[in-house]
Amino acid sequence: MTGGSRAHARVPGHVTGLFTVERGNDPKATGSRGGGLTLEAGVEVSVEPSSETTVLMGEESIDLEAAKRVLENLGESATVEVETDLPLGVGFGLSGGIALGTALAANETFDLARSTNELVTVAHVADVEAGTGLGDVVAQARGGIVLRTAAGAPGHGSLDGIPGGGRIEYLVLGELSTPDILADRPDRISRAGRRALDRLEKTPTRSTFMEASRSFTEETGLATSSIQSVLDAVEDAGGTAAMAMLGETVFGFGTVLSDAGYDPSVTRVGHTGARLRE
Amino acid sequence: MTGGSRAHARVPGHVTGLFTVERGNDPKATGSRGGGLTLEAGVEVSVEPSSETTVLMGEESIDLEAAKRVLENLGESATVEVETDLPLGVGFGLSGGIALGTALAANETFDLARSTNELVTVAHVADVEAGTGLGDVVAQARGGIVLRTAAGAPGHGSLDGIPGGGRIEYLVLGELSTPDILADRPDRISRAGRRALDRLEKTPTRSTFMEASRSFTEETGLATSSIQSVLDAVEDAGGTAAMAMLGETVFGFGTVLSDAGYDPSVTRVGHTGARLRE
Repeated sequence: MTGGSRAHARVPGHVTGLFTVERGNDPKATGSRGGGLTLEAGVEVSVEPSSETTVLMGEESIDLEAAKRVLENLGESATVEVETDLPLGVGFGLSGGIALGTALAANETFDLARSTNELVTVAHVADVEAGTGLGDVVAQARGGIVLRTAAGAPGHGSLDGIPGGGRIEYLVLGELSTPDILADRPDRISRAGRRALDRLEKTPTRSTFMEASRSFTEETGLATSSIQSVLDAVEDAGGTAAMAMLGETVFGFGTVLSDAGYDPSVTRVGHTGARLRE
Repeated sequence: MTGGSRAHARVPGHVTGLFTVERGNDPKATGSRGGGLTLEAGVEVSVEPSSETTVLMGEESIDLEAAKRVLENLGESATVEVETDLPLGVGFGLSGGIALGTALAANETFDLARSTNELVTVAHVADVEAGTGLGDVVAQARGGIVLRTAAGAPGHGSLDGIPGGGRIEYLVLGELSTPDILADRPDRISRAGRRALDRLEKTPTRSTFMEASRSFTEETGLATSSIQSVLDAVEDAGGTAAMAMLGETVFGFGTVLSDAGYDPSVTRVGHTGARLRE
């Protein structure tokens, strides 16, 4: 029951379909409202005490500010090893996911006796302060299809869910910079996000999630021309796809991308939130 | 993505280790604070439209008031079929679990477009009004080791968690009646529950959960003499076990019951909350 010298956590990937930007005085109260899918595909994070903090993916050291901030906040230093079946920087919430996995695994390794909400808060604040995410961490902690009905860490934000899940197809076209986009047009994003979320709160179903996400993509003007041409092709084939916020990635339920002639990656909605591995 | 004529849900079992009784004016605000383990073992519920509501376990019709109340509240009638690898009426939260599974599956079958929180609320209210549970439903919706830090349905209650999980052993000695016990000594239970929960909120770890649950069992005087002798034998063998609230059932982590010479049933902490089956 007590941690060894090394602990492992698994955190699901998270694709945001629509969101608002909500900045408070405190990073705990800062975040976003919106909706997204947590995925069976995700990230494995292991934490081992070390005199200096490094984050490794394979053999390579990566600069993952959110994970480093988590360890600083917890007053520990460690070697963090990351493995994932999802690509980084294309809209799967991996910065937040690695931060949350680091918090969970560090709590076990260093016997910190923090509650889940405390660890989620540390990871959320780290992701917000690093500028890499506003709502992934709280969704990843829960699992399933998550509605962020109020923004922020546990105690500030509040969550609801859309029941059900299913097969998810996605197609990665390229990278986008989350900090740049959030700085560029927060008001336009938030207006479109509020409209989409209102619609989704009235009819919290999987099909309305996709339609509201598609409208959000249109109204924010965030789609690149490559994304737009995939969205149009899926629509022509009778399906609904949307853009992963924020990456040059398109996603949809079932076989919407295959049906439109693409060769997508496949995962499923994951019903299990972030957890320690045993 | 849309429901067929029949839908299935899976809900984890839930063992409460310590709790308070919190009665509000409204069943949504009624519930309990406390802590418990959600389990990999659980209940499968299927719902199929029917002119009259019946709840079947195997071939047998069972009188499960909480599940019937869920369908009444949703304005539907259905045949509910229940399968479980856990015994009914001995402290695994199956009344609440079947109510929650019925709500999730009925939402899909009848295309009701309710959110997860709405369905959890309907099931929580049904369990409270049937007198069969106060806190199982909200814990079962979340998964993991759950702290109920404020009582009631989503929007009223609040939850936290203890990170981690592990192997759980349990031994069923007999049945207890939840409604009778809750009516008999709510004040003594709530006093002991507040003390145990305070301790657990200060140190939210698996070992403190077991110690606080063991103290709660002692202070409430709920243990039957058969339970007391098992608890003592586990303690003599160097372990900590506690009583499942409310059933004549003893549980603990790892191999505490085997180590004391018993032949227990085995499951694990489940990290996945209630969900639709696909």
